[in-house]
Amino acid sequence: MSKPYVVGIDIGGTNTVFGIVDARGHVVAADSVKTKKHVNFDDYIQDLHEGLSRLIKANDAEDQIQGIGIGAPNANYYSGEIVNAPNLPWGPIVPLAEKVSKIFGGIPVAVTNDANAAALGEMTYGAARGMKDFIMITLGTGVGSGIVINGQLVYGSDGFAGELGHVIMKRNNGRICGCGRTGCLEAYCSATGVARTAREFLEVRTEPSLLRNLEIEDITSKDVYDAAMAGDKLAKDIFTYTGTILGEALADMAAFSSPQAFILFGGLAKSGDLLLKPIKEAYDKNVMPIFRGKAKIIISELKESDAAVLGASALGWEAKYRYESPLLEKQDDENN
Amino acid sequence: MSKPYVVGIDIGGTNTVFGIVDARGHVVAADSVKTKKHVNFDDYIQDLHEGLSRLIKANDAEDQIQGIGIGAPNANYYSGEIVNAPNLPWGPIVPLAEKVSKIFGGIPVAVTNDANAAALGEMTYGAARGMKDFIMITLGTGVGSGIVINGQLVYGSDGFAGELGHVIMKRNNGRICGCGRTGCLEAYCSATGVARTAREFLEVRTEPSLLRNLEIEDITSKDVYDAAMAGDKLAKDIFTYTGTILGEALADMAAFSSPQAFILFGGLAKSGDLLLKPIKEAYDKNVMPIFRGKAKIIISELKESDAAVLGASALGWEAKYRYESPLLEKQDDENN
Repeated sequence: MSKPYVVGIDIGGTNTVFGIVDARGHVVAADSVKTKKHVNFDDYIQDLHEGLSRLIKANDAEDQIQGIGIGAPNANYYSGEIVNAPNLPWGPIVPLAEKVSKIFGGIPVAVTNDANAAALGEMTYGAARGMKDFIMITLGTGVGSGIVINGQLVYGSDGFAGELGHVIMKRNNGRICGCGRTGCLEAYCSATGVARTAREFLEVRTEPSLLRNLEIEDITSKDVYDAAMAGDKLAKDIFTYTGTILGEALADMAAFSSPQAFILFGGLAKSGDLLLKPIKEAYDKNVMPIFRGKAKIIISELKESDAAVLGASALGWEAKYRYESPLLEKQDDENN
Repeated sequence: MSKPYVVGIDIGGTNTVFGIVDARGHVVAADSVKTKKHVNFDDYIQDLHEGLSRLIKANDAEDQIQGIGIGAPNANYYSGEIVNAPNLPWGPIVPLAEKVSKIFGGIPVAVTNDANAAALGEMTYGAARGMKDFIMITLGTGVGSGIVINGQLVYGSDGFAGELGHVIMKRNNGRICGCGRTGCLEAYCSATGVARTAREFLEVRTEPSLLRNLEIEDITSKDVYDAAMAGDKLAKDIFTYTGTILGEALADMAAFSSPQAFILFGGLAKSGDLLLKPIKEAYDKNVMPIFRGKAKIIISELKESDAAVLGASALGWEAKYRYESPLLEKQDDENN
């Protein structure tokens, strides 16, 4: 019998990366197409189909693909659609699962948002193997989350559950967030949030800092990291401030689902103890006594370059949606 | 075939209420024993056994009891124990499921905390019938919660998940909470919290109020309710303040599990629009746009007098723990 594979596709605002993945989580082969240049969704799907078909053929995997999993911003697991994604040009509602399944001749497809895909990847191939209850926090341009309870990803009543970047951490005088409200976790603990904190600290405080050599509006979280690693006190304080807010947020999440672990993923998570130490201190100080010392706070084990594809591919194993066979699919569900 | 029943037991600090319940959620018969007077746990179990056996016999139900479900403060679903319950006199760890199953000859027993039992009751017999994703908030002396996701109660990694009364709502200058921290939801939105708010408002504000006729230390949430219903402005403001904080908290919970509904239960929940209106206003104002207008905020449909027993009994149908047959039970589990 030939070896089973799945395909993982990660749709980002700029690039779409896709790969063929085996059951042990090895990315057998990967490639990419540009997301941005396709203003028309059907053109994009054509291009994706060509690229992926070529990759599958080159690896002699034509009859071995069990399913396709796709991670995309604002993708909904239940409907298979991308809904109101601010950085994609294809309109408010994009029938992603349907179009991909159709162009690949009815192959099963499942979609979810990028943070949920990361959580699935971590559970299938990473630090969360064997865990039934954990929370994945992705620290990138924004703050995303994927929540696993009882071994299942939490999609909620509408498929959009797990937006923990948007719990309110500052109820008074909070920063404006991209979601339109103020005081969200994301406004403080994303890469963008760290840069905003840097600008705030540089304006309010007076001590010298390496960061003062940079144009204040251009400072990135990477600049803050580099300065902190060079021993800059103000830059270290920015990480302490960021980690403290994140630790307070994790403590509240523990009251919800009492996870075995919080797993941090993404650029900021690579800051190591600069961020992890204040997170853990604030968590221990703020978590309810009954949960103290229980949940681990750890960094993702997935290689960042593979993670997006791996995460999406994990969804491919359980993909059920098939274009043109809705009746058959319904029967399957009822018999399970 | 004889009609199947379950037994529901609700252990409170003062009384233990128990009842025989049929599959349609009718409490066929109920009785109670005093909790408080038994300093020794074995004596308590003896008394409970006598009372419950009498009730079962009087209703000719000896061979029809499928299981016993028990709701108790700090009861752990996984271990079957009561752990560190402040208002029970039996020591730090009480092997509740084991002792009850043993004295009833090996009948299956399951235990959980009172708020989780209420959620199960609501899902089995109440306003949450047919719902797979909802959050039950119990507003009593404290604030408890039972979270249902994907049709399953959330117990978390340790059996203590769902302590939403202890998310932090005031990070600065918050009230001291019974859990030892400050600023918890429970310190504001429990019956006790409402009474504390009354004392605070009466001290800080100067306008006349019916509440000023009462001894300030003796004011209860019921007094505040009565004054508000009599048109008292300050008393109404206390409910607005309480409901606003609760609405803000529910908005953050939506970001976690995006439930179909929040169901409010307990004494305070009977305050009607006095509380519900500010809750809904604060929720709509604070919830992330993607969740706006989705979750219902409703009052429990369970009769308060029956609810505790019904909720506990709902757990009886799925009870698995049997005293003296751990091997058998394990086999059953593996075959499922």
